[in-house]
Amino acid sequence: MKIGIIGAGRMGRALGRRWARAGHEVTISFTRDLRKLESIAREMGHGARSASPADAAKGADAVLFAVQWSTIDEALEQARSLAGRTMLTCTLPMTADDSELAIGHASSGAEELARRTGASVVAIFNTVTSELLSDDAEVARMRPDVVYCGDAAEAKLTAVHLARDAGFNPIDAGALRIARYLEPFGLLIAQLAYERNLGETLGYRIVLPRES
Amino acid sequence: MKIGIIGAGRMGRALGRRWARAGHEVTISFTRDLRKLESIAREMGHGARSASPADAAKGADAVLFAVQWSTIDEALEQARSLAGRTMLTCTLPMTADDSELAIGHASSGAEELARRTGASVVAIFNTVTSELLSDDAEVARMRPDVVYCGDAAEAKLTAVHLARDAGFNPIDAGALRIARYLEPFGLLIAQLAYERNLGETLGYRIVLPRES
Repeated sequence: MKIGIIGAGRMGRALGRRWARAGHEVTISFTRDLRKLESIAREMGHGARSASPADAAKGADAVLFAVQWSTIDEALEQARSLAGRTMLTCTLPMTADDSELAIGHASSGAEELARRTGASVVAIFNTVTSELLSDDAEVARMRPDVVYCGDAAEAKLTAVHLARDAGFNPIDAGALRIARYLEPFGLLIAQLAYERNLGETLGYRIVLPRES
Repeated sequence: MKIGIIGAGRMGRALGRRWARAGHEVTISFTRDLRKLESIAREMGHGARSASPADAAKGADAVLFAVQWSTIDEALEQARSLAGRTMLTCTLPMTADDSELAIGHASSGAEELARRTGASVVAIFNTVTSELLSDDAEVARMRPDVVYCGDAAEAKLTAVHLARDAGFNPIDAGALRIARYLEPFGLLIAQLAYERNLGETLGYRIVLPRES
């Protein structure tokens, strides 16, 4: 698959590296420090390249949206048209001081992103720490779950493949509006990992009933 | 411990039965069908009794708040003073049609309950289905986690003991305001269990890093 990543922070880099290693054609984009972008792509290895957000998105089978919420205007402007694209988002709609959700309850960051872009958005990896994503041994040991949601069946299928290629077990939580629950759950995971000090690489697993 | 339960629905009955069996002195209260309350207590067994909410709360070491959110006014009126009490709440602040959260993002049901009662509130068991709580074999097999939060250290210690006595592994998520994340997480669990049909008795586990 051709994957364009918008956002060269820890989430974008960790997922890009995993997907490049799994054989996908990864292009990473969007950083404040443009000189750094090429070396970020080089560090990801496996043929990953750097480009502008518009070039990363153009012709991509999937676009990963992994930017700080406070830079969303700039990111969407640079990406140009994302309408109709399959777009995975792990971005949590945090306030500028990164302390809490700026959107919630009656909407979600994922729904807002869908509304603004016209893309087929799937919310995924917003409940996983970047430290876990960066830790190959822990992901292999845990085979952690990752809940996701979205309205477009084809886009969700792409998300399932990419979640598995990243070493996670994807669990379909339903329609995109369920991101109203996923995003606070992502904050709960962050709270346990960083504030309660249970460990930055913690994961979670849904335990299924015996009969199912 | 003396435990007063306000709410004789599936959550209150299932937790009351577990605690009565563990040796606690359980009194259950508050139902629309008053004639039923005595038989509910009898079914719970292990010496569980029925009473009015005020009598159930009086002298209790812990009060469990387990009512439909739409009946909160009536429940609090009948309970009289709960100020200073250790109060565990598993109630999700649902809309009258039970379809979504009535409160969220900038507050939570648990915070609202603390504000209205002056009790030392701990939010717990709001992320667990009543079907799992009612299934002894599954709880024993899974030893599921249950996240909780609150502001009063002593009340949280009581919650930890009662969670363990109910067969769950309690995980401290921090201050009461974290209920803003726990309550949507409870809805996510309900979504997976009932809407996505993964099974009504599903549970969850936080997977800790290897080194912790």
